Amino acid sequence: MQINTSLKTLDISYYQYTIQDNDLPFGIGITNFFGGPVIAKSLRQAFEAIVGPDHVMTAPEDLATYAYDAAPLESVLPQAVLMPESSEELGRIIKLCHENRLPITVRGAGTNLSGGTIPDADGVVILTALLNRILEVNETDMYAVVQPGVITAQLVTKVEAKGLFYPPDPGSQAVSTLGGNVMENAGGLRGLKYGVTRDYVMGLSFFDAMGNHIHTGSRTVKCATGYNITQLMVGSEGTLGVLDEIVLKLIPYPAHRKSIISMFKTIEDASETVAGIIAGRIVPATLEIMDQFTIRAVEAFSKAGLPVDAGALLLIEVDGHPAQVEEDAARVLDLCEKYGAYQTQTAENDAQREKIWAARRSALSALAKLKPTLVLEDATVPRSRIPDMVKGLGEIARKHGLDIGTFGHAGDGNLHPTILTDRRDKTEWLRVEKAIEDIFAHALSLGGTLSGEHGIGIAKSAFLENEIGRASVEFSKRLKRALDPSNILNPGKITGD
Amino acid sequence: MQINTSLKTLDISYYQYTIQDNDLPFGIGITNFFGGPVIAKSLRQAFEAIVGPDHVMTAPEDLATYAYDAAPLESVLPQAVLMPESSEELGRIIKLCHENRLPITVRGAGTNLSGGTIPDADGVVILTALLNRILEVNETDMYAVVQPGVITAQLVTKVEAKGLFYPPDPGSQAVSTLGGNVMENAGGLRGLKYGVTRDYVMGLSFFDAMGNHIHTGSRTVKCATGYNITQLMVGSEGTLGVLDEIVLKLIPYPAHRKSIISMFKTIEDASETVAGIIAGRIVPATLEIMDQFTIRAVEAFSKAGLPVDAGALLLIEVDGHPAQVEEDAARVLDLCEKYGAYQTQTAENDAQREKIWAARRSALSALAKLKPTLVLEDATVPRSRIPDMVKGLGEIARKHGLDIGTFGHAGDGNLHPTILTDRRDKTEWLRVEKAIEDIFAHALSLGGTLSGEHGIGIAKSAFLENEIGRASVEFSKRLKRALDPSNILNPGKITGD
Repeated sequence: MQINTSLKTLDISYYQYTIQDNDLPFGIGITNFFGGPVIAKSLRQAFEAIVGPDHVMTAPEDLATYAYDAAPLESVLPQAVLMPESSEELGRIIKLCHENRLPITVRGAGTNLSGGTIPDADGVVILTALLNRILEVNETDMYAVVQPGVITAQLVTKVEAKGLFYPPDPGSQAVSTLGGNVMENAGGLRGLKYGVTRDYVMGLSFFDAMGNHIHTGSRTVKCATGYNITQLMVGSEGTLGVLDEIVLKLIPYPAHRKSIISMFKTIEDASETVAGIIAGRIVPATLEIMDQFTIRAVEAFSKAGLPVDAGALLLIEVDGHPAQVEEDAARVLDLCEKYGAYQTQTAENDAQREKIWAARRSALSALAKLKPTLVLEDATVPRSRIPDMVKGLGEIARKHGLDIGTFGHAGDGNLHPTILTDRRDKTEWLRVEKAIEDIFAHALSLGGTLSGEHGIGIAKSAFLENEIGRASVEFSKRLKRALDPSNILNPGKITGD
Repeated sequence: MQINTSLKTLDISYYQYTIQDNDLPFGIGITNFFGGPVIAKSLRQAFEAIVGPDHVMTAPEDLATYAYDAAPLESVLPQAVLMPESSEELGRIIKLCHENRLPITVRGAGTNLSGGTIPDADGVVILTALLNRILEVNETDMYAVVQPGVITAQLVTKVEAKGLFYPPDPGSQAVSTLGGNVMENAGGLRGLKYGVTRDYVMGLSFFDAMGNHIHTGSRTVKCATGYNITQLMVGSEGTLGVLDEIVLKLIPYPAHRKSIISMFKTIEDASETVAGIIAGRIVPATLEIMDQFTIRAVEAFSKAGLPVDAGALLLIEVDGHPAQVEEDAARVLDLCEKYGAYQTQTAENDAQREKIWAARRSALSALAKLKPTLVLEDATVPRSRIPDMVKGLGEIARKHGLDIGTFGHAGDGNLHPTILTDRRDKTEWLRVEKAIEDIFAHALSLGGTLSGEHGIGIAKSAFLENEIGRASVEFSKRLKRALDPSNILNPGKITGD
């Protein structure tokens, strides 16, 4: 049995590149593929006793479906795929895995871009698809309680109907799950003003590696009770526990918003404008950049009417009190002009506004159409260093003879340099790997970080020490060993053990 | 040698109750007091080799000065008090303590209200007084880098001069240190709109229990690199590491603000008004409540012209864009009237505004004048349950025949029920202990938490399991044991080991 949360069965443009590019995911050997499940019959029966036979999948096509995620990495077939329907079933699964030392990889929608949901060959995948209830939306105290499998956009829609706002908006929000968002500390377009997922997680309940049920945090705005295990879990990529309930902070929906599109001859001008807006102490809800390469790909894909001759675009939204919005918008327009925009337009209505953001949201899918393999990076720098980062990316592309499209959340220093390549071309792939190393090194040299919002996963674990140092990696390993002594929780992610 | 950060030597009204009430701190036995230091000579010399003889204190009067904090708990004399002047000295101290299994309690200003800075009898106190430099204020990227001994108010003043805002404002901010604020996850009056200390900590560097130097977090707005050790450290009360550098997020200073004082016949009416303002989706910067008992104490102390016949006051500040401020203020005035305020005044100028907030800030000192011992609690409930909490506190006071003044941050559900007593009266003290237990139980029954902002320390560690459960306490202990295997970092705090 398959369920509609795999990359394969979702018909959403965001993922088309993955599906188109690989008829079969990387690394699935013929032997494995036709050899059938190797999980012991007794173990399979024990899982079936917990979740029912329909919710234990071991058929080759099912295992293949959950062997990879949105990162361009080798696939790994798990032993079985499990779909618990309740916290109680989830807890029993974890206990059984603990007793049998079976590695566990929990998977929401598999939109992970750093390999965090690629399973262990000896382990199981737990799908959260059936743990998908919004348990409470508390309008007075402004929080929601959800199960991990709730789709991000579903919560957003539900709380908006009550005049409330859940700001984190990862690009994958139409399909990504809140459990995945929490475990990856997902970002999005609104990080600049509203922060990221971690800023909205008030409390959690989860099962630890032994199957103990842990409750952390609170439904109160303030909480100084005990260790901040809630925030330790956020961004831990499934390596410290398995979520079954999440308490999320909500805020009042902004009264007003205004979207602006500004066109520049060069990406340098656009990035100087970003620095100018930040220096002007304006805090837009969103401040996105798109280079010419990306503009042309998006326009070919979406026919949104983007200016294909522009060297770069800024897409800006300000929100809040109407008077504040008008003032901020006017100042943004002035700054765009001052820094060399040759044209700036304000969306006059919701349809125009929606058109701007639909174009932005299609950037990844559009780029993915151009070549078989897409590598989406998210190295991030202090906001004022955006011009330096943009310049560096151009040099790295030239040095390695690669196509690198650049777009992303310029307002919070979080660019998405996107390398278009074909992984089957071994020579070019080596150059891609060198370019990725150069991107990381350049971001770190500017006081930045390896990952703004995609996490470390498998993809960046070898680079972790470059940023945080040997002692901090050792500290992290000690933490992981203490909380998961048998190393069954999503092994190999973050610290690469 | 003594330095000006001890409770004894500071002439600040906030602490007068501690100083007045106890000629000698609790629990200092005559034998210890005159017995002199018992620290081994070789160890003393080793510390002197690191920080110099002037920065190692072992005289009885020095040990006594750092034997207690602002919580009404038994004092404990440490073996020595050390004052490092640099990160390097700090790291060498930690290594020496590690090698000798010497417990370490780090102390900022000792304003802790849960016993978090009460040392171990076998250990040393490390003062952060000389680690007091603001290392960087980055105006463009809006962050500050500070050493842990910087006084909170000094940073606030420094960044305000640059048009920037560091919002966390614990009541003790005039003397408290940022290192202490981080380790206690200090709250304050602005939690409702602006959050608490943890919401402003972007990165840290610290020494772990073995003296390894650990770097976490980033200077970027977004960071999804590795475990969220930064936030694990926030609120860990000195039990997981010793800070030497803190990166704090800053935001633009609010353009405008308006303060309102509203008078009610009963505290029930005032607390219903709080719930009404929250339900109206208004987010004031500050929304404080004060009962009649507290009003009268404050007026006797401060002569601020407060209405001593009012059953309760609300003190409200709205800030932001001027148009937003005017609208919010008008809506707040309407709501106060609707819920039964008999008089509401808006501060017409800075002097009037300052008068309101000076009165509020003197509440603790004013109450402390009334009786020898003051117990300040901070059990916190979801915002909408404030009326239920206020009602419960009245019942608890009557049941145990105690004076309980109530004031605090009603807008974020964080009340400060304050019990006035005399700890030398054993019979009454037993009733006080029962009342504290009832306050905790009532807050938890309303979906609240033991501590909104004061931490667990020693004072509440016995109650921790009531809130988070046995499994979560065990999880916390595993974490602590892994990161501090010899249990030398502020032993006994939080989990009570």
